[in-house]
Amino acid sequence: MKNQQWRLSSRPEGLIGPEHFERGMETVLDLTAGQVLVKNLYLSFDPTQRGWVNDTESYMPPVAIGEVMRAGTVGQVVSSEAPGFSVGDLVQGLGGWQEYFVSDGGLGLSKLPAGITPQQALGVFGTTGLTAYFGLLDLSDPKPGDTILVSGAAGATGQVVGQIAKIKGARVIGIAGGPEKCRWLVEEAGFDAAIDYKNESVDAGIQRLCPNRINIFFDNVGGDILEAALDHLALNARVILCGGIAGYNAVTPVPGPKNIMNLVITRSRMEGFIVIDYLSRMAEFLADMVPWYQSGKIIHLEDVQEGFDAIPATLQRLFSGQNQGKQLLRLADPV
Amino acid sequence: MKNQQWRLSSRPEGLIGPEHFERGMETVLDLTAGQVLVKNLYLSFDPTQRGWVNDTESYMPPVAIGEVMRAGTVGQVVSSEAPGFSVGDLVQGLGGWQEYFVSDGGLGLSKLPAGITPQQALGVFGTTGLTAYFGLLDLSDPKPGDTILVSGAAGATGQVVGQIAKIKGARVIGIAGGPEKCRWLVEEAGFDAAIDYKNESVDAGIQRLCPNRINIFFDNVGGDILEAALDHLALNARVILCGGIAGYNAVTPVPGPKNIMNLVITRSRMEGFIVIDYLSRMAEFLADMVPWYQSGKIIHLEDVQEGFDAIPATLQRLFSGQNQGKQLLRLADPV
Repeated sequence: MKNQQWRLSSRPEGLIGPEHFERGMETVLDLTAGQVLVKNLYLSFDPTQRGWVNDTESYMPPVAIGEVMRAGTVGQVVSSEAPGFSVGDLVQGLGGWQEYFVSDGGLGLSKLPAGITPQQALGVFGTTGLTAYFGLLDLSDPKPGDTILVSGAAGATGQVVGQIAKIKGARVIGIAGGPEKCRWLVEEAGFDAAIDYKNESVDAGIQRLCPNRINIFFDNVGGDILEAALDHLALNARVILCGGIAGYNAVTPVPGPKNIMNLVITRSRMEGFIVIDYLSRMAEFLADMVPWYQSGKIIHLEDVQEGFDAIPATLQRLFSGQNQGKQLLRLADPV
Repeated sequence: MKNQQWRLSSRPEGLIGPEHFERGMETVLDLTAGQVLVKNLYLSFDPTQRGWVNDTESYMPPVAIGEVMRAGTVGQVVSSEAPGFSVGDLVQGLGGWQEYFVSDGGLGLSKLPAGITPQQALGVFGTTGLTAYFGLLDLSDPKPGDTILVSGAAGATGQVVGQIAKIKGARVIGIAGGPEKCRWLVEEAGFDAAIDYKNESVDAGIQRLCPNRINIFFDNVGGDILEAALDHLALNARVILCGGIAGYNAVTPVPGPKNIMNLVITRSRMEGFIVIDYLSRMAEFLADMVPWYQSGKIIHLEDVQEGFDAIPATLQRLFSGQNQGKQLLRLADPV
């Protein structure tokens, strides 16, 4: 059996795109004891993948040149020589940009909870939801009276952050690019207001919408947007650093915020986290998120592209802001 | 009775100096009920005074043009119409750059604990010691095995931070300017090592002295030194933002650290604080600090200038790095 792949062919300097990947083809070998063969059904696209292809020290080793591109996936077990995995099981893991992958001893592979579809497993119940949940609730304590600002608000993580903050009773302002994303945030996701950074300065938008300043800022973007938010912190504010997509494709580092001293004047805290530290607490997350989703308290916007050929171009959608919500790609449906 | 004063005459753009102050003279009026007349004995000089003369929102209102320069002081009560204050009492407050001041109802005035000299009250037992104590112990938890980096280490706050961290069992590296300050830190104050930023890149110094990276960074400086430290954070590091003297006299803002995302990768926290929030906990601080000082576990270096005329030039010493330890000025001795 043949396995088509997309392999990293060169390290991008600047915007990542299809030119940094090349097609590969492998023959799938017979399984040995402990191995599981999985057919990938859906791929997850996440801004953090941009960091995985840099040849720099980070929280995971870089993807090597010639290696299949790393990606979160949901797939279905095609054959199994490992206890606990049966043909037909839906499983989640880091299957990468390929049609099939072999997991050794089921390492890094987890079965989907009953009733959760592949798309939901990478969407509302996936790592971006987990990121939103623990980033917001472990690093801050949103409550009635608080004003929360979320950047990248229409993205996979941001949309969930804002809706959880609403459930906790806070006032929620999102920052997103373009009128359609902003409309969706307010009219469908229940945000109190949105700042369209393509049509208004973020500083002016914060002044207009946060007269009592910002108690919690959940940042997915960094750069100028972080700097603008730091100018409007309330006393004892919490700045949650989730990501910095503004800088991920920069050839030279984007300038840092010139107003770090505002953290001193307002006695505020800025803190980073990485979702992999919370993977073991998935059950805790699902115990809240499944009923929130089923009761309609949280909705989730996903952008599903199609087909193996479209994989490299789909990653680029994240960095051009084309994605409407969580970026996914469908390779196949479960059988 | 005449009262000589130094009043703010213009707002500095760039380095503050004697040219921004003018002499004033007032007649001290008879006290009314509730008032206390204090003769200033010692003045405290602190980097934060630079911020008090900017016409911008901060944690205290700006000193107005024509107003006596605000400063921490220790003085002696000359006459009193307020209950609780008697002639001869040594008192601490914000007496400003003048020979005498009148406190209304003893507001903001506190009597020195018995056995503490005026110089000690503004030195080791003063607000810079309080800053060191609560900044370090409230915002982090230094313990054996930790590596702590302190910038502005030979300054009033930094020297105390490092010595408290040593008492808590941590390994302490200081950053200071010039061989004499570095020698004092290691040979006299018991720091494990020091980086002389005038003769070595801070980045190289950290690499050399912190092979296991930095668990706690106590920053009094900001700018390039903050950026260098952020490149060497251990997992779950704590960055304590106390001040940013590198930027206090800048005409245009100093660039922010380009590597804020290191807070994400290392899951670290950067937090600011201001000592005025801890003034009510002075007793808690003294309960530790007095025995530490009396037993020699903590020493304290002070730089005492002399005389009314030298006041404005003495402030500038902080920003040129001339001060050796806590900067004070003696106006008179108690009687």
